[in-house]
Amino acid sequence: MAKVLTSRDESYAQWYNDLVLKADLAENSAVRGCMVIKPYGYAIWEKMQRVLDDMFKETGHQNAYFPLFIPKSFFSKEAAHVDGFAKECAVVTHYRLKNDPDGKGVVVDPDAKLEEEYIVRPTSETIIWNTYKNWIQSYRDLPILVNQWANVVRWEMRTRLFLRTAEFLWQEGHTAHATRQEAIEETETMLKVYAKFAEEWMAMPVVQGYKTANERFAGALETLTIEALMQDGKALQSGTSHFLGQNFAKAFDVTFANQDGKLDYVWATSWGVSTRLMGALVMSHSDDNGLVLPPKLAPIQVVIVPIYKKAEELERINKVVDGLVVRLKSLGISVKYDNDDKRKPGWKFAEYELKGVPVRLAVGPRDLENGTMEVARRDTLTKEIMPLEGIETKVQQLLNDIQDNIYKKALDFRTANTTKVDDYEEFKRLLDEKGGFFLCHWDGTPETEERIKNETKATIRCIPMDAPEEAGQCMVSGKPSNRRVLFARSY
Amino acid sequence: MAKVLTSRDESYAQWYNDLVLKADLAENSAVRGCMVIKPYGYAIWEKMQRVLDDMFKETGHQNAYFPLFIPKSFFSKEAAHVDGFAKECAVVTHYRLKNDPDGKGVVVDPDAKLEEEYIVRPTSETIIWNTYKNWIQSYRDLPILVNQWANVVRWEMRTRLFLRTAEFLWQEGHTAHATRQEAIEETETMLKVYAKFAEEWMAMPVVQGYKTANERFAGALETLTIEALMQDGKALQSGTSHFLGQNFAKAFDVTFANQDGKLDYVWATSWGVSTRLMGALVMSHSDDNGLVLPPKLAPIQVVIVPIYKKAEELERINKVVDGLVVRLKSLGISVKYDNDDKRKPGWKFAEYELKGVPVRLAVGPRDLENGTMEVARRDTLTKEIMPLEGIETKVQQLLNDIQDNIYKKALDFRTANTTKVDDYEEFKRLLDEKGGFFLCHWDGTPETEERIKNETKATIRCIPMDAPEEAGQCMVSGKPSNRRVLFARSY
Repeated sequence: MAKVLTSRDESYAQWYNDLVLKADLAENSAVRGCMVIKPYGYAIWEKMQRVLDDMFKETGHQNAYFPLFIPKSFFSKEAAHVDGFAKECAVVTHYRLKNDPDGKGVVVDPDAKLEEEYIVRPTSETIIWNTYKNWIQSYRDLPILVNQWANVVRWEMRTRLFLRTAEFLWQEGHTAHATRQEAIEETETMLKVYAKFAEEWMAMPVVQGYKTANERFAGALETLTIEALMQDGKALQSGTSHFLGQNFAKAFDVTFANQDGKLDYVWATSWGVSTRLMGALVMSHSDDNGLVLPPKLAPIQVVIVPIYKKAEELERINKVVDGLVVRLKSLGISVKYDNDDKRKPGWKFAEYELKGVPVRLAVGPRDLENGTMEVARRDTLTKEIMPLEGIETKVQQLLNDIQDNIYKKALDFRTANTTKVDDYEEFKRLLDEKGGFFLCHWDGTPETEERIKNETKATIRCIPMDAPEEAGQCMVSGKPSNRRVLFARSY
Repeated sequence: MAKVLTSRDESYAQWYNDLVLKADLAENSAVRGCMVIKPYGYAIWEKMQRVLDDMFKETGHQNAYFPLFIPKSFFSKEAAHVDGFAKECAVVTHYRLKNDPDGKGVVVDPDAKLEEEYIVRPTSETIIWNTYKNWIQSYRDLPILVNQWANVVRWEMRTRLFLRTAEFLWQEGHTAHATRQEAIEETETMLKVYAKFAEEWMAMPVVQGYKTANERFAGALETLTIEALMQDGKALQSGTSHFLGQNFAKAFDVTFANQDGKLDYVWATSWGVSTRLMGALVMSHSDDNGLVLPPKLAPIQVVIVPIYKKAEELERINKVVDGLVVRLKSLGISVKYDNDDKRKPGWKFAEYELKGVPVRLAVGPRDLENGTMEVARRDTLTKEIMPLEGIETKVQQLLNDIQDNIYKKALDFRTANTTKVDDYEEFKRLLDEKGGFFLCHWDGTPETEERIKNETKATIRCIPMDAPEEAGQCMVSGKPSNRRVLFARSY
């Protein structure tokens, strides 16, 4: 059948967009920059949410919900934050429409102008710290370990499905602590949660590290990040965890009486991942035939397709498959038996390949005679005939193997595309020729960082946590450096 | 200890507000009419969401996500809808702020005015049907059975926590069908889902019925509702399911080729419940001591409080309780062991009573000697000494009993407060003296309905589905009526 996707070689960007649309993950909406997340895409997001939510709860967090709107004045309270966030935002200025006096639809009622405009939240530090002020009096009220699942809006001029949209879905954790140390530990704990989720569930290896001052969240003292490498050699920032110090507590006057009865400002963190992870998932594993999903996040882990000509053949297949479906489900495997008569097997094979279903079982009359099934795995596109007897445990093992295999494949790709470079000219050349991650010495100044960014479009993705001490010289300035940092072009 | 709540007799409205605040369910925010849902309140909402979501999926629905914003012009497309919805809304007119030239914070950038204003969704029929237009070509694309969990905004002048807030959380199902009959069946199916949820999970009996034309959703041909009776004798509309006919399909030009290849407009339903259910839950069961939660929705089903003076007593209690906690959890019971040394048992007893924890176990040194525990149930406020041996199965049974008991109590209350009245003067008198539900004959005209509403503030809550045929005369006009309808004052 005809290829439905542009190939990655032809245009990676077009391949990505084709795939998101054709695999029914999401589409653009009538509202500029806002997407519709379609049921199949949302089912993956729900799986992500469920796993992350469980991980947050295991680490002691509770969910809550704060208002969508933020009074404009709140943004001015934290100086760095206002510069970083309060600019490209959706602004609510009125609260009523009225019938158009000319009789054509509705118009904004000029009499219903808000005294103070509301901003649709781009992130919720300000409204939440304004709330925490009333929740916190003493050390007994601390820590507050709260997370919110919400939509946020950042007015983006150039948008791409999942990767950069005006509205997106995310979770934002906002915690309050009695001590600096405890807040720092929380920041690190949550980064580790994100890294574990990325690697064990998304099968996506990530580099954990610290952002440079330039790249920090607006208002943070330290931003920790997980950075993943996409197949086109660009980095994707996949989750961040911020140590906010006492900045927001000071901005919103949130103090607590410590055990000695002395007042101090509260220490803060915030951390988030978003529907951007959907883009990361797509770009980490998928191929020119469609999605490749890690079994742990696939809405359908196994699809069974009957091959038949006559109705009575289908009936016999149905009987065998019905039992298998029960056995697979009892192992906690999500399975779809697609015996829809309106579609041919070839169409179904292509459809489930496009949608990244990890394992496909096919069964025809001859299989029934032989007591076998054809088992196809999505990651390697290989097929094998297996005995029907006990196939459910084989499938379970296969799902684990696929999960491991796509992680390993992504890790091998990253290893092959991580280059140590000591010379700036070579850096520039390899950045264009090969792309990927680069480990280089940097003199630690924002000026050098800025120059590299302007000249190459590569940024410091992070100072890796596990970067070994290594004496060297900045590849640009020649000044001393004591560890390599991670450079890449990025999404 | 001092009463923390206003009593219901003193002021039901104040009792409700006190309780929502003191039980840590929600609070007002800095944004007019918007609430903060606090962790304990959100934990209950999450349980509701989980159960409802499972029920939606069991009935074949999938989740998706549509934009927060709706272009203003969309509202004008469905004539009845615009009158019902597009008026009291949050309107986004600009997409950028800039630094105040006077140096004080930020101001709206007049250059960043939207060509067409966006409305923050008050409900999503319009944006969704505009999307469905592209999803539906033929009968093969139908039905579409989609649900969305989302926040919505309706600018309300007088707000009350959970019951009426400018922003609230809800789910909205939006389905598309090939036939009128199938859409009507969907409307009924989802009302039954809501009724089952209300009765079996919230322990809240509901009357299922049809709204009168006056009370229908803007754009619906038929609105089905579940109506619950609160303890103050007022009705609370707790969920609605709308048969929208072809109105939205016509407004957004959504047609499909049927099996004969002929084009027809698609049939639609929508249905929703919201965080208003939290208000219904509070007002159905709670008392002057605090919340009474149905065990099936209680975040903490069982709390265990140690009674001790010396540390070594606590140690011995800890050992016994640790084993019990494991046994309770293995039965799927959510249990909290509160051995926090900073609070006294009396404080804890009051706290968990306020928060509606269904079962409280207390254990002291004497209990250890006797092999017993004190078991207190929240619904009846009774206590009993039980043998520790096998107490977990007793607790499990007790949770079931409490669930049944509070449902029965609410049902008995409703029965006692549902009055058949045939005389309008008596209706008015009893409405003031007793309140509750009234089953009366009505002549079926909007004029009579309107007159009753103006004169008494009572409305027709619904025409109950199970109302038997009964010849009678309208209590106002004396005209013939063939069944009684349900009147009440309402939230």
